[in-house]
Amino acid sequence: MTEQPSERIGVAIRTHSGPGTLHEITGVIARHRGDIKSVDIASDSDRDARVYLEIEVPPPGSSGVLMEDLRALSVVKEATLVKTLQTIYGKRVIIMGGGAQVGQVAIGAISEADRHNIRGERISVDTIPLVGENALADAVRAVSRLPRASALVLAGSLMGGDIERAVREVREQGLLVVSLNMAGSVPDAADLVVTDPVQAGVMTVMAIADTAKFSVSRLPRRVF
Amino acid sequence: MTEQPSERIGVAIRTHSGPGTLHEITGVIARHRGDIKSVDIASDSDRDARVYLEIEVPPPGSSGVLMEDLRALSVVKEATLVKTLQTIYGKRVIIMGGGAQVGQVAIGAISEADRHNIRGERISVDTIPLVGENALADAVRAVSRLPRASALVLAGSLMGGDIERAVREVREQGLLVVSLNMAGSVPDAADLVVTDPVQAGVMTVMAIADTAKFSVSRLPRRVF
Repeated sequence: MTEQPSERIGVAIRTHSGPGTLHEITGVIARHRGDIKSVDIASDSDRDARVYLEIEVPPPGSSGVLMEDLRALSVVKEATLVKTLQTIYGKRVIIMGGGAQVGQVAIGAISEADRHNIRGERISVDTIPLVGENALADAVRAVSRLPRASALVLAGSLMGGDIERAVREVREQGLLVVSLNMAGSVPDAADLVVTDPVQAGVMTVMAIADTAKFSVSRLPRRVF
Repeated sequence: MTEQPSERIGVAIRTHSGPGTLHEITGVIARHRGDIKSVDIASDSDRDARVYLEIEVPPPGSSGVLMEDLRALSVVKEATLVKTLQTIYGKRVIIMGGGAQVGQVAIGAISEADRHNIRGERISVDTIPLVGENALADAVRAVSRLPRASALVLAGSLMGGDIERAVREVREQGLLVVSLNMAGSVPDAADLVVTDPVQAGVMTVMAIADTAKFSVSRLPRRVF
């Protein structure tokens, strides 16, 4: 392991689509000791694809040669350095549950994120209204596969069963989980329980913001 | 090119972290003619990483052998088939601009997404409150790199200049762009202009929902 500091870069590539293309690109990046953090591929047509990569490159400044070697690949038509999605959209708060409550939590979270983003942070507020224990449990578990997700708010009137198990699983993976005060066992499993949905959104953003002096772990109580 | 239908699968892998690991994994997938659509890597620690891939495999049912070969790699500790993020979170509407307006558009979009998701769709509503021409233009352009983004709503009181150019660029790439009726040149560049923010959110979700009989291209006017 190198002790040099690494730098995260975004690379947007226009390429031929199809199996094997990504393997060629990752080969060049591996030779440069780049540590790939994410890749997304969108097909423009049957023949072309847009590939977006986030890569940690050691040491800072070494990206120039990497870009040249990527452009030299026959499958690569164009490669440009771009700002990372972390830089542009930042941390994500995910809100899920019933439409009425999700909307009210979003109002609070978006308004509070605005105040922090004005001071230089980047916090996004992402939502999905969903019905049913299985759909919600799947969505909770999948938050651990969403890039940049920092906190989850469960916004509904009744949630329990497998949703509670999913909440305990994602908390173990380091995700902060806030629940509205509601029927069912989900509030028992959450880090924080809040009755007012607007306040739930505000508190969740405060908890993940670097510009806020607020920590869930130092609160004298867990239910508000 | 094969004419067989392909199937999209999600694969969650626990692996050793570090440069080169992804290159080994993509090698196995390329040998199976798998077409990788996205990869996300989260580091659990200095030594372990969680890798999530979405892959199109031809023909459906061929994923069993692929999974066995992935598990046989020495860098792979565990590999499991999971539901794709497309299946769980579906299409995304992205709302950006001032906190007050973003919140109101979100209310409309979340409420309308709820109605479609109850009928079997999956539509997410994702937001970021942002200030300033450069930050917003960057965020608009980056929507084309966000997975599953189908529509963008610009929610503010004054937007123009480079934001207008960014709107025209992402529309050329096939993104639907809705603008609130506001000062500046962004409304001139949008597919649809709506004065009421709640209605803007509702109309945008209707426009991308498969369960709605609504098409922006068939509207008799562009400004509401």
